[in-house]
Amino acid sequence: MAFTIEQMRFWSPEVRDLEPYVPGEQPKIQNLLKLNTNENPYPPSPKVVDAVQAVLAHQADALRLYPDPDATVLKQAIAKQQNVDVSQVFVGNGSDEVLAHIFKAFFIQQEPILYPDITYSFYPVYSQFFGVQTKQIPLNEKFEIDISDYEQENGGIIITNPNAPTSIALGLDKIEQLLKANPNRVIVIDEAYVDFGAESAVELISRYENLVVCQTTSKSRSLAGLRVGFAIGQAHLIAALEAVKNSFNSYPIDRFAIAAAVASFEDQDYFQEQCEKVIASREKLVANLTELGFNVLPSKANFIFATHSLHDAAQLAEKLREQGIIVRYFNKPRINQFLRITIGTDEQNQRLVDTLKMLII
Amino acid sequence: MAFTIEQMRFWSPEVRDLEPYVPGEQPKIQNLLKLNTNENPYPPSPKVVDAVQAVLAHQADALRLYPDPDATVLKQAIAKQQNVDVSQVFVGNGSDEVLAHIFKAFFIQQEPILYPDITYSFYPVYSQFFGVQTKQIPLNEKFEIDISDYEQENGGIIITNPNAPTSIALGLDKIEQLLKANPNRVIVIDEAYVDFGAESAVELISRYENLVVCQTTSKSRSLAGLRVGFAIGQAHLIAALEAVKNSFNSYPIDRFAIAAAVASFEDQDYFQEQCEKVIASREKLVANLTELGFNVLPSKANFIFATHSLHDAAQLAEKLREQGIIVRYFNKPRINQFLRITIGTDEQNQRLVDTLKMLII
Repeated sequence: MAFTIEQMRFWSPEVRDLEPYVPGEQPKIQNLLKLNTNENPYPPSPKVVDAVQAVLAHQADALRLYPDPDATVLKQAIAKQQNVDVSQVFVGNGSDEVLAHIFKAFFIQQEPILYPDITYSFYPVYSQFFGVQTKQIPLNEKFEIDISDYEQENGGIIITNPNAPTSIALGLDKIEQLLKANPNRVIVIDEAYVDFGAESAVELISRYENLVVCQTTSKSRSLAGLRVGFAIGQAHLIAALEAVKNSFNSYPIDRFAIAAAVASFEDQDYFQEQCEKVIASREKLVANLTELGFNVLPSKANFIFATHSLHDAAQLAEKLREQGIIVRYFNKPRINQFLRITIGTDEQNQRLVDTLKMLII
Repeated sequence: MAFTIEQMRFWSPEVRDLEPYVPGEQPKIQNLLKLNTNENPYPPSPKVVDAVQAVLAHQADALRLYPDPDATVLKQAIAKQQNVDVSQVFVGNGSDEVLAHIFKAFFIQQEPILYPDITYSFYPVYSQFFGVQTKQIPLNEKFEIDISDYEQENGGIIITNPNAPTSIALGLDKIEQLLKANPNRVIVIDEAYVDFGAESAVELISRYENLVVCQTTSKSRSLAGLRVGFAIGQAHLIAALEAVKNSFNSYPIDRFAIAAAVASFEDQDYFQEQCEKVIASREKLVANLTELGFNVLPSKANFIFATHSLHDAAQLAEKLREQGIIVRYFNKPRINQFLRITIGTDEQNQRLVDTLKMLII
């Protein structure tokens, strides 16, 4: 929808220039194979459903009451699972909200923050929104983060690990190098995909007073529909996030979401099992695509990033869509010959492989 | 919790000075009569429970998928109930989030925004958070908003109607006066409490291109536990809110909240009935308190604002608490001899009256 300049006079001047984030599409088409937004192919733990049933059975009247603004029971469940103190946990309405609060809390500094040129495309959006200065650091020619490129003055650093959409993980030794090199700035490790095979930096929290780790329940816990994300860090960093959150929205997580997320964190066996299934399916899919001539970057995520030297990525994405399969294509420099493909069930991945076989052979 | 200056070096400088909002407390005490946060004494429509049951029965697997970022079915249900076009509806994670987006979208201007000196205490918090300049306009000696006081240059105006914590409503004629006097600025009417007897400005939307009305499901729809608020305005204003929202968090409303709120908007009979019960209970309570010597401001809300010439308000609040009844007391100039009391059921109100009788006679 376009508006006249006259109508735009009501907008705050800085808002007229915003370039909002564009999420992967959520089409409502039957029989569509949706491999475009890195959702988990498996449902959440059955205990999640039980927990919501229990709210309906015992606390439906309590819906009239505000939820706990601190979501204490949820923080406790996360603290237990992550083996940290409850004062080291911050929760928000999805990790996107947590990241927004992180940008406000730590990154409005004299110097620009650093992040890779190819990474989560919400970072430049938050930066513009909060007036954060930025400097993008190119990934190396293998699409890896080279830590030595980050040895420069900065207002903070944010790294997605494993990175998206490249899927490549960074070792904890490299992250420690970053933490040591920047003792006066906050280093944020965005671990949305960490549970599919990468090493979490949460174990470094107790030793580094400048580390914030952000995670989500949307991928490995199959709760994208619920909107619960969290951050882990030493208490003085969590306090900054709380000050920001309580200046924005006191009660971001509703009663159903609190109960459901707690149930998920309490069912570690189910969680572990689903993650392992996704990892096994990923390895099978990588092998199949490699056989078809794709070059697939080494993935530690629930998606892969793949290119084919003989077939244009945009055209492949288009042809897949005609066959009812949606993958994510980014029309951006350096990566416009890649497809980002979410790992589905073995059956779904086979449908993808069969379709690609038909399209490219 | 206090932190050292050294630890605070990690915070964004502007965040070190934030003075966050302090919500009314949510104590977890048995048998407590909680009349402090303006929640509805009645549960939400039974159809809300049915709707969540239906999600569990038919869509529990879909929890793994992101919700619709636009919450289209919810916007449609609100548009139908409010008799506006769906393009005129914005939804958010509680009206607090909607208000935050409103401050960012419209109020970052050269001139200060105007709001009453006594009103919702989140407004100065948002203003500080987003760097919005403000000018507080004193209520008149009867604690009313005098529209002529707002005849001055401004970057926008926000009025709570009925006002909180005073409970006094402003007529639509006065709001039209504001809208006409400020053709280049956005006038926001925050109608959190409008359903308990005041006139909604939504009917003015089609005629004024500078009007935004904000409402919530937390009070009249008994869904504080769910976090759904909304704004109504012409499409060019809603577009500004969408640009802001999509620069902050794409998916703020989860699948349960969408389904539950839709069910609430579809059950107008239940809604109407509960509102009427609260209004009738309010009139009874006002009469009883007046008999006890209280001066009660004329309320169109689900709370009253009351003072007693012979009894100190802070002490009364303290004594009520000792008896297991919590009301809200604001230790602020002009209103530090008032108590804000949420309307309970007739039975709850009677307990309050009996306790006060015991305390002050």
